[in-house]
Amino acid sequence: MPKDNKNTFNLKTPKGTKDWSGSDALLRDRIFNTIADIFKRHGGTALDTPVFELREILAGKYGEDSKLIYDLQDQGGEICSLRYDLTVPFARWLAMNPDVRSIKRYHIAKVYRRDQPAVSKGRMREFYQCDFDIAGSFDAMVPDAEVLKIVTEVFEGLGWQGRYSIKTNHRKILDGVFEVCGVPSDKIRPISSAVDKLDKMPWADVRKEMVEEKGLDGAVADKIETYVVRRGGRELLNDLLKDEALTANESAKAGLEEMTNLMDYLEAFGVLDRISFDMSLARGLDYYTGVIYEVVTEGSAPAVQQSSLPTSSSEAPEAQKLQKSGKKDKSKSGNLEDDDRSNDPTLGVGSVAAGGRYDNLVGMFQPKANIPCVGVSFGVDRIFSITKARIEREQRAEALRSSEVDVYVMAFGGKGFTGMLKERMDVCKTLWNADIKAEFSYKVKPKLPQQFKAAEQGGIPFAIILGQDELANGKVRVKEMGLEEGHPEKEGVLVDLSSLVDEVKARLARKSQSNVDALAQQLEGTKTEDAGV
Amino acid sequence: MPKDNKNTFNLKTPKGTKDWSGSDALLRDRIFNTIADIFKRHGGTALDTPVFELREILAGKYGEDSKLIYDLQDQGGEICSLRYDLTVPFARWLAMNPDVRSIKRYHIAKVYRRDQPAVSKGRMREFYQCDFDIAGSFDAMVPDAEVLKIVTEVFEGLGWQGRYSIKTNHRKILDGVFEVCGVPSDKIRPISSAVDKLDKMPWADVRKEMVEEKGLDGAVADKIETYVVRRGGRELLNDLLKDEALTANESAKAGLEEMTNLMDYLEAFGVLDRISFDMSLARGLDYYTGVIYEVVTEGSAPAVQQSSLPTSSSEAPEAQKLQKSGKKDKSKSGNLEDDDRSNDPTLGVGSVAAGGRYDNLVGMFQPKANIPCVGVSFGVDRIFSITKARIEREQRAEALRSSEVDVYVMAFGGKGFTGMLKERMDVCKTLWNADIKAEFSYKVKPKLPQQFKAAEQGGIPFAIILGQDELANGKVRVKEMGLEEGHPEKEGVLVDLSSLVDEVKARLARKSQSNVDALAQQLEGTKTEDAGV
Repeated sequence: MPKDNKNTFNLKTPKGTKDWSGSDALLRDRIFNTIADIFKRHGGTALDTPVFELREILAGKYGEDSKLIYDLQDQGGEICSLRYDLTVPFARWLAMNPDVRSIKRYHIAKVYRRDQPAVSKGRMREFYQCDFDIAGSFDAMVPDAEVLKIVTEVFEGLGWQGRYSIKTNHRKILDGVFEVCGVPSDKIRPISSAVDKLDKMPWADVRKEMVEEKGLDGAVADKIETYVVRRGGRELLNDLLKDEALTANESAKAGLEEMTNLMDYLEAFGVLDRISFDMSLARGLDYYTGVIYEVVTEGSAPAVQQSSLPTSSSEAPEAQKLQKSGKKDKSKSGNLEDDDRSNDPTLGVGSVAAGGRYDNLVGMFQPKANIPCVGVSFGVDRIFSITKARIEREQRAEALRSSEVDVYVMAFGGKGFTGMLKERMDVCKTLWNADIKAEFSYKVKPKLPQQFKAAEQGGIPFAIILGQDELANGKVRVKEMGLEEGHPEKEGVLVDLSSLVDEVKARLARKSQSNVDALAQQLEGTKTEDAGV
Repeated sequence: MPKDNKNTFNLKTPKGTKDWSGSDALLRDRIFNTIADIFKRHGGTALDTPVFELREILAGKYGEDSKLIYDLQDQGGEICSLRYDLTVPFARWLAMNPDVRSIKRYHIAKVYRRDQPAVSKGRMREFYQCDFDIAGSFDAMVPDAEVLKIVTEVFEGLGWQGRYSIKTNHRKILDGVFEVCGVPSDKIRPISSAVDKLDKMPWADVRKEMVEEKGLDGAVADKIETYVVRRGGRELLNDLLKDEALTANESAKAGLEEMTNLMDYLEAFGVLDRISFDMSLARGLDYYTGVIYEVVTEGSAPAVQQSSLPTSSSEAPEAQKLQKSGKKDKSKSGNLEDDDRSNDPTLGVGSVAAGGRYDNLVGMFQPKANIPCVGVSFGVDRIFSITKARIEREQRAEALRSSEVDVYVMAFGGKGFTGMLKERMDVCKTLWNADIKAEFSYKVKPKLPQQFKAAEQGGIPFAIILGQDELANGKVRVKEMGLEEGHPEKEGVLVDLSSLVDEVKARLARKSQSNVDALAQQLEGTKTEDAGV
C-alpha cells in the first residue's frame, strides 16, 4: 500500500474485505462453476436477492450475533442492513411468494458480518456463502437424502475423493437422548450446545461446562457421555434401535426411524459409505429441527493453525490431532465466539460444509405460508484455501494461471520489419471467431523476445508465429511453448492458414487430454496417500 | 405481498431492489456467461472487489451524483459506502497494485445508487454492471480497437446480429471542433454536455441551451451544428481530414489520426461495418480522454416508452422515431437527471453499452502509478429486458424455463404398487453420475398423473418411466414429452437399463440440435425483417 504522496488516498479495501484477482479469482470461479453445475444437475434454480434487506427482516433471527449486522446509514427512507447469511433472505422470499410450494434453489453470494476480522485465519467481514436448499412438504427424508447426495457430488467434483467425511445426526435423536438421560427440558438447548463443542474440546471439558457452568447433575452428564461418544454407521443405528429406553422416547423413536429411512435412501443413491452417524454432532443454530450434518476434511482444521492455509501435507495429520485433542485455545473454548472458529460462524471448526432440516423458519415471516426446508451451505472461502494449497503442493502451475488464453499470436522479421500488426489482428480475429482464446502484443512493432516473454509469463501453451515470407505463402508457424531442446517440434510446425483453426483446436485437445491424464495419475497417487482420512 | 397477519413482517425487498428467480435468473445467468466467455476469449481476467469501499475512495469521483452514494452507518471503525460503479474500484485496485502495469480485467457485479427508483422504467437502486477494461501503456488505438471488437462479439453472441449499431467519436476531435468554431475554453465542457443531448433532443433545443443557458454566441453554435450533425464512416473521416481549419487544430489533428488508426484496425478485425462515426456523440462523464462509444439497438429506446419492455416488434420503429424527434419529455430535457435516462446513468438514453478511453483516472489515486485505460460497460439489466422481450415475442418457451432439468424419472404400477422409490433413486443416481440433469418425485408412492404434471410444468423434455415388470426384465421406458397423438414414439420406447445413459444422451443431443435448427430458422427470419436497423 504505497502512501508516499501527501495527496493520495488511504489506498486499501475496508477492514476484513479483500479484492479477488488473477489466479485466485479464476480458481474461485472454477469452484463456483463446479458447484453450480451440480446444483443444476439436480434441478436447482438460481435465486438472487438484494445485498441489503429491510432491517426488520433480519431482526430476531440471529440471536446474540445480531450485533454483527452491518447497517446502512439512515439517509431518509427505509432502514436497511446488509444480509448476514443467505438463509433468511431465502425464507423471506418463500414467505413473499406463497404460490411457490416447492423449490430447489441455490445461491452463491457474499454475506456480511461486522466481526473482528482475522484475515490470517480467513475470518472476513465480507465472504462468500454457497447454499442449496429444498423447500416443500414431501415424504420424510427423501429430499434430505438428495441434499447429502449433492454434498458427495460436490466434493467428488472438486477432486476430494476419499478426503472428506460427512458427519450426520438428528436433532430428534439428540433431544430424545437428553430426555432419556434426564436433562430438564429447559436445559436441553444449553446442553446440546455444550455437546456441539466436542469437535474442539475433550469430553472432560464439555462435562465440566455441563456440570459447573450449566448446573447439570454429574450422573446425567455421565449418562449423556455413553451416547454422544458413539459414532458409526448402520450398526450404530441398529444398536440404538435395540435400546429400549431410547425407543420408548417419542422424539428419539421418530428420529431413529427417520435415520433408518435416510440410510436406506443414501444406500439407493450409492453414497452411504461416505456418511458417518456421529452422535456428538449437535450444530449451533437453534432453527434445525431434523437431520443435521457437517463435512470435515483432512485439510479443514486450518482455523486451529496459524494460517488458514496448510502449507504442506505433513500438517494435515497434525491438524487432525489438534482438532481431536482440542489442546489449543482450551482457555477460550467455553465461548463459541472464540478465535478458533472459521470465517463462517455457521460452520463448525474445521468443517467445509454444513446444514440440516429447518421446518419452522419460513413460518417466522408468514405463519400461514410456512414451508419445511432442508439445505446445505458450503464454506467456499475455506474450500478455496484448501484447494489452492493442494494445487500448490502438487505444483500444478497450469491450474494457477491468471487467465485462460491458449494462443499468443506473434510476428518477427529482419530489416524493414513492419510489425505485421494488421496481420496479427487478422489471425486473432480468425481464432476469436472460432472461439479460441487468443492474445497479441499491443505494440505496432514488438520485438520477438518481448512477445515470447509475454506468452511465457501468461503460461500460454501455444504461440502462432507470423513471418513475412511464410505468410506470403499462406503459412504460419504453430509452436507449443516449453518443449525441451531436441524435441522434433521445438521450432514449431508450418501450417496452412486455411487449416489453422483445425490445427490449433486439435493441438489444444491433445494438450488438454495429456493434462487430464497427468492430473489423474497425480490424484491416484495422492488418493492412496490420504486414504486414511 | 400478503400482509394479512398482524404479527408478520413488512414482506418486501427494499425500494428499488428486486429478487431474481426462476426463468429470469436463468436467462440472466446465460447472458452473463455468454459475455464472460467472450471476455475470457480475449484474455480477460476476473477482478472482484468488495461491495463497499472506504468513503474517501469514492469521494470526488462522481460530481453532483455523489449525493446518490449509499453510506454504511458509522458503527465504529472505518467509514464506508456501497460502490457506485465498477470503474472507480478498478482504478483504486490498479493504484494499490503498482506492479500490475497491464491487465485486461472484467467485472460483473451489482452497483448501488440511492436514486429515485422507477421500477417500471427499469431504474433500480441495485443493478448489475458488466465491465471490461484494458489498462496499460500501449501503442495508440490497438487496445481500443480490441474493446470494440469485443463489443461486436458480445452482441453477435447474444444473437443480436444486425440489430445493433456502435456509435463512436473522439474527445480530441470534439474538443478541436469546439476550438475551431470559437468556443471559449471554459465553455468547452458545458457545450460538450449540451451536444451529448442530441440523442434525445432536436438540434434547435440544444442550440437554445447553448445560446440561452450557456451564453454561447449564436454564430458559434451554428458553426458547431455543421459538424455535430455529421455521421458516417471512413468517407466522413476523409472529409474531415481535408478540412484545413480542423487539421490546423492540434487536438483535432491528433484525434483524426487516432480515428484513422482505429478504422484501420477495425477493418483488420473485420468489424468496421458495425461502427458509425457519429460527431454528435459526446458522453456525459468528464473523465474520458480519447475515443468514446455507445451501442444502440432497435429495442433500446424503452426509457422513452411507458415500460422498459417493448412488448411487440412493431414498437421498435416507433421508438426509433421517438428517439430521433425527441418530442417526448422536451420540457424536462434540460436536465440530464430527467426521467428519460436508463437505470444506469452511465449509459445514454437508449443505449445498451458504452465506454471509452480514460487515461487519467488512476492517477487521481496515485499520481506516480498512473496508467492509461480503455473500457466498456454493458447495461446488462437492459440487455436482459430486451432479450427476454424478444424471446417472448418469438414464443421460445424452452428458452424461458426456470430450471434446466432434462429427465424426470417416474414410476407407475397397479394394485400393490410400492412407489418404487429406491428404484427411482437408483436410476437418478445413474443419470446424475453421468452428468445428466434429472429429478424425481419426493413422494414414496406418487401417482402417475402427478409425476407427468411435474414434468410438464417444469418443461422437462424427457420422462423415464419405471414399471415393475419391465424393470424386472432390466428395461425402462424413455418417453419424449409433448409428442403428438399418433407419433410412433408417443408411448415411449423400452430401453435396456445398461444402455440408458447412452440412449438418453443421444436423444438429448438430437433434441438440442433440432432446437438449434428451429432457432436458427427463426433468427434467419427475424434478421431479414429487422435488416433496416
